Amino acid sequence: MNRLCSAAILSFVSLAAAAEPLPSWRDGATRDAIVDFVDAASSEGSEGFVPANERIAVFDNDGTLWAEQPAYFQLFFAMDRVRAMADQHPQWKDTQPFKAVLENDMEALADAGMEGVVTLVMASHAGNTAEEFEGIVRDWIRTARHPTRDVPYTSLVYQPMLELLEFLRANGFQTWIVSGGGIEFLRVWAEEIYGVPPAQVVGSSIKTRFENRDGRPVIVRLPEIDFVDDKDGKPVGIHRHIGRRPVMAFGNSDGDHQMLQYTAGGDGPRLMGLIHHTDAEREWAYDRDSHIGRLDKALDEARRRNWVVVDMKSDWARIFP
Amino acid sequence: MNRLCSAAILSFVSLAAAAEPLPSWRDGATRDAIVDFVDAASSEGSEGFVPANERIAVFDNDGTLWAEQPAYFQLFFAMDRVRAMADQHPQWKDTQPFKAVLENDMEALADAGMEGVVTLVMASHAGNTAEEFEGIVRDWIRTARHPTRDVPYTSLVYQPMLELLEFLRANGFQTWIVSGGGIEFLRVWAEEIYGVPPAQVVGSSIKTRFENRDGRPVIVRLPEIDFVDDKDGKPVGIHRHIGRRPVMAFGNSDGDHQMLQYTAGGDGPRLMGLIHHTDAEREWAYDRDSHIGRLDKALDEARRRNWVVVDMKSDWARIFP
Repeated sequence: MNRLCSAAILSFVSLAAAAEPLPSWRDGATRDAIVDFVDAASSEGSEGFVPANERIAVFDNDGTLWAEQPAYFQLFFAMDRVRAMADQHPQWKDTQPFKAVLENDMEALADAGMEGVVTLVMASHAGNTAEEFEGIVRDWIRTARHPTRDVPYTSLVYQPMLELLEFLRANGFQTWIVSGGGIEFLRVWAEEIYGVPPAQVVGSSIKTRFENRDGRPVIVRLPEIDFVDDKDGKPVGIHRHIGRRPVMAFGNSDGDHQMLQYTAGGDGPRLMGLIHHTDAEREWAYDRDSHIGRLDKALDEARRRNWVVVDMKSDWARIFP
Repeated sequence: MNRLCSAAILSFVSLAAAAEPLPSWRDGATRDAIVDFVDAASSEGSEGFVPANERIAVFDNDGTLWAEQPAYFQLFFAMDRVRAMADQHPQWKDTQPFKAVLENDMEALADAGMEGVVTLVMASHAGNTAEEFEGIVRDWIRTARHPTRDVPYTSLVYQPMLELLEFLRANGFQTWIVSGGGIEFLRVWAEEIYGVPPAQVVGSSIKTRFENRDGRPVIVRLPEIDFVDDKDGKPVGIHRHIGRRPVMAFGNSDGDHQMLQYTAGGDGPRLMGLIHHTDAEREWAYDRDSHIGRLDKALDEARRRNWVVVDMKSDWARIFP
């Protein structure tokens, strides 16, 4: 009885104390703004209190929770899939954008533009069942390595953001991912890596169909875009999946601008944050002129409205786990 | 200290004991099948154990959690909206299906069929912001009364199902609604009535758009169908929102058939259930020949595969709260 009691008390205390949250964040205004907001949101009676069922925090993924250079990691996945499937598609040797992938010609791939990327994604992501696709992603995420850093992609998640997700959940927040990336790609590993269950992942999607395949009722993935969860699409995706306006949102690019505006547009306490990639040495430095993760208009609005701007170089003591 | 300790222990005990779950269910095979499944699913080491993150139960709404006669309650909502908006649309007096609504001509309305219903829903549900629509539904659900029973619609929820939702949550299940009805209609009151938060409601939807309206960033509802969460659509909706195959599913009509098949198609322990409307005295009795909530093929498959079939008349000691 005593032991059970101590355990119960202890779990209270460990939640309540949380003596040093966000250890990879350097002391300063950025860290204070976040900790103060969360403390107030979870303290009944405080001015910044937020009822438990409204404590919803949304996070972009690429460039916010993990790195996105030299290209979105899901593009590398699509390229690896094209290589793995090339034997069954001999015509790809002579057809763009597949030819560019098979010849590792990044310039030709860039020339193929967004249309080329969509073609790649359709060819490499559709046709199988949801469960088959899950298996493919699971294998890839375990074995694939980043082209320049030569580490697993999941080693390039941001340690300070993992701590923030934890800290939020310990204070009764729901943590959601709202990504321009594919919802089914992310869901496979988001729970293990970020502690975010599949149902709390919002992302871009292709259409699916219910089917009996070999006597088994399955979801089949179709080569047709269903929803693009980027820019204007992010508030729409949030509304569709969460059905409530978040009180906290973090992004890193103009693709997250509308999500931050939507979050800011509600009543009561709220916190909007941008990750600013300023550390060329430990990570990558880019903003207004970057092809990937361009941060321009959202940065202007963040400065004008006093949103939290995280300076990776000065605010983060550590970047990767 | 002692008091805190007792409280902590007590909350453990009250969860663990749950001496008499499902009090409105009569003793018998149906109740036993459900209780045994849930007990096993939440008992580590038992053969029927289900890991916590896979304990997902899905429920149809109309005819499964609340009544659906003499017509889906959301149709009465749409009709009330048309009446409330008629002054701004003088042409409705002479245009079907609006004329039928304004003249309370249920026969003409039935003649307008599914197309008529869609026209009504588009006219009555779209054009406003998500928050405006939420306010309208909130007012309606508080004040509207059922046409023949003359009670609020929320009095026509099934007490045994409320108890089942509670029992499942107390045993670590997530409870989801997967309805052919409108997602935004349901989300307004599902939390208060069923204890199901907005994010755990899946339903049919119209398209929406992000917009700045009078300087406020909002979601605007468009008069265009986005997704029909019925029949083949239910497994697709489950996959889209939950991203995991449920282990328990309850429905009451052929519109739920594919959801039950999809749930049955997974590995490991699972329970599929149908509510069979057999009580003409306390509720309504209907199945194979009903226009609303037809239950035919799903009933055959349920009997063939030994799914749980709840006989409302004999299995439920009490129907409404």
